[in-house]
Amino acid sequence: MNNRLDDFQAYRSRMNKRILEIGNRGIKRFFNLDTMAYKDGALDTKTKEMLGLVASMVLRCNDCIDYHVLGCVDAGCSDAELSEVFNVALVVGGSIVIPHLRHAVESLDLYKGNAQPENE
Amino acid sequence: MNNRLDDFQAYRSRMNKRILEIGNRGIKRFFNLDTMAYKDGALDTKTKEMLGLVASMVLRCNDCIDYHVLGCVDAGCSDAELSEVFNVALVVGGSIVIPHLRHAVESLDLYKGNAQPENE
Amino acid sequence: MNNRLDDFQAYRSRMNKRILEIGNRGIKRFFNLDTMAYKDGALDTKTKEMLGLVASMVLRCNDCIDYHVLGCVDAGCSDAELSEVFNVALVVGGSIVIPHLRHAVESLDLYKGNAQPENE
Amino acid sequence: MNNRLDDFQAYRSRMNKRILEIGNRGIKRFFNLDTMAYKDGALDTKTKEMLGLVASMVLRCNDCIDYHVLGCVDAGCSDAELSEVFNVALVVGGSIVIPHLRHAVESLDLYKGNAQPENE
Amino acid sequence: MNNRLDDFQAYRSRMNKRILEIGNRGIKRFFNLDTMAYKDGALDTKTKEMLGLVASMVLRCNDCIDYHVLGCVDAGCSDAELSEVFNVALVVGGSIVIPHLRHAVESLDLYKGNAQPENE
Amino acid sequence: MNNRLDDFQAYRSRMNKRILEIGNRGIKRFFNLDTMAYKDGALDTKTKEMLGLVASMVLRCNDCIDYHVLGCVDAGCSDAELSEVFNVALVVGGSIVIPHLRHAVESLDLYKGNAQPENE
Repeated sequence: MNNRLDDFQAYRSRMNKRILEIGNRGIKRFFNLDTMAYKDGALDTKTKEMLGLVASMVLRCNDCIDYHVLGCVDAGCSDAELSEVFNVALVVGGSIVIPHLRHAVESLDLYKGNAQPENE
Repeated sequence: MNNRLDDFQAYRSRMNKRILEIGNRGIKRFFNLDTMAYKDGALDTKTKEMLGLVASMVLRCNDCIDYHVLGCVDAGCSDAELSEVFNVALVVGGSIVIPHLRHAVESLDLYKGNAQPENE
Repeated sequence: MNNRLDDFQAYRSRMNKRILEIGNRGIKRFFNLDTMAYKDGALDTKTKEMLGLVASMVLRCNDCIDYHVLGCVDAGCSDAELSEVFNVALVVGGSIVIPHLRHAVESLDLYKGNAQPENE
Repeated sequence: MNNRLDDFQAYRSRMNKRILEIGNRGIKRFFNLDTMAYKDGALDTKTKEMLGLVASMVLRCNDCIDYHVLGCVDAGCSDAELSEVFNVALVVGGSIVIPHLRHAVESLDLYKGNAQPENE
Repeated sequence: MNNRLDDFQAYRSRMNKRILEIGNRGIKRFFNLDTMAYKDGALDTKTKEMLGLVASMVLRCNDCIDYHVLGCVDAGCSDAELSEVFNVALVVGGSIVIPHLRHAVESLDLYKGNAQPENE
Repeated sequence: MNNRLDDFQAYRSRMNKRILEIGNRGIKRFFNLDTMAYKDGALDTKTKEMLGLVASMVLRCNDCIDYHVLGCVDAGCSDAELSEVFNVALVVGGSIVIPHLRHAVESLDLYKGNAQPENE
């Protein structure tokens, strides 16, 4: 039942808690801004999660990709919609994005139960 | 009447034509892929232009920002929607994005006629 | 008497004012966080401005470099100290930083009146 | 006998197949463009693989580095030639490239059988 | 007793030795420049290690972060000082830095014995 | 007769001289390493200039692109060879490279006298 997404989420929760314990006010406020940026507003959460995903892919951050792939699925993105986000990321960012596209597709499969968990 | 957006568009057209004259097949095909990536599909052009804009902002490319700011306005993005795209870009990309946020807002003002053209 | 630093500061002030007029709460708060990050704390402003400068140089953002070169001088950095910040940026970021090192040194000269203003 | 290069190649094949199953036409075409870019033309494959390697190193993508290190060896690059590609990458990209230089040299050793496989 | 910092240091030493065996003069000299950049000068090692850390964080290189977190602790940085370096990195580099902030804080805890070693 | 390449070369010479006057030993040595990296060795200057060009394009640095476009032409690269370097840069780096491809092609035209100088 356990896979790398569960490990990532556990690590993420544990370390975010640890970071907030440090007590730096600027860091705390930044974390709040980050959370608020994806709330429904003039744009809905689904659109904002797709914005977060494409930004994470062109900046090539796997942990950020995982976070927003899950956010996109939870906000109701279809596979066809996600594939078009992936395509924009690939065209804008180039072949250097391909390893992160592999990661994104694997995360999507793991989250939706399409694939057996395998170590990367 | 003339401003830096007009100069950019003229330069862009002239040089893209020049690039395609080179006759490299890979480059031509890439230009086609780039154009197709923003066409209506599972996601509409408006959403895809916002994806292109946020990617351009976090990668900090002013010419790409101009291209997608205009695309977003043409596709019907409201100012409130654009401000939320800007906010996601700022939070994901950090203060290093601020000079490009200034550029994006100035381009938006120039395109919508909110501002007198001024040299940057 | 006028030089590109004056132009930059005027443009920066005008556009930051314009950005805050947009009224996006996340963007406003981000601007506050950015300002606060360089205030005296466990580290003094001088050290933090040097941190901002080296980060701006390796991320290759000329506007950010100008902002922090001026901040470093105002906070009392000597030329010898600045040259060591430049060296760390160059070693960490590589030759791709060199055009920005030229920009930084020119900005420093302009700000300290060591050089006649010239168009870049 | 098994090492991280074998794991990478198996993962790469499996996930590329999975990506193409998604059926997004833009992504498929991009993959074709990527393959074609390294074929013999005005420049031979050996030169193009070195171009791909230096680009991968300065953009700091380990999977891309592995792909092109193997491509360079297969195309006939000598160790002396590869060390000069590494040096250009290091000078252009700076010390931030060093962890990826370690990865590249380890991959080279693994591929040529110079080293015992070890977990990184 | 063993944790990922020990593994990193062993790997780093082994591969740096291997890289220098290659005998490329440019690479050797670059490694010397890199070492010298953090020696006491107009700025002391403590300040320079903080410069190296913030640069590594905004460029998002975990191995470089580990190297400079340890250097900062060894040079006498307090936790409060390090948290302000982290905050500057976060504000300059944005949320894309957060996974590397988690890594930096975990490395700090491991090095200072505040945490039980856990696999990331 | 004057164009932006001449301006760039004059600015580059003036500021490099100014940087070396600062007298920082690390910076001086870095400039030497940078020069040496493109000298004939196991790979010839022509190949190394192409490596420098593709690295400059994917890192999106116009001044570095100009430097290496001129170096490539001087080392004997044909237009067909340069177009394949451009294509590798475009595929690896994505559409974000396109503005820099326009710059590179314009620089090439200016240097070879194919185009009338125009302000960008």
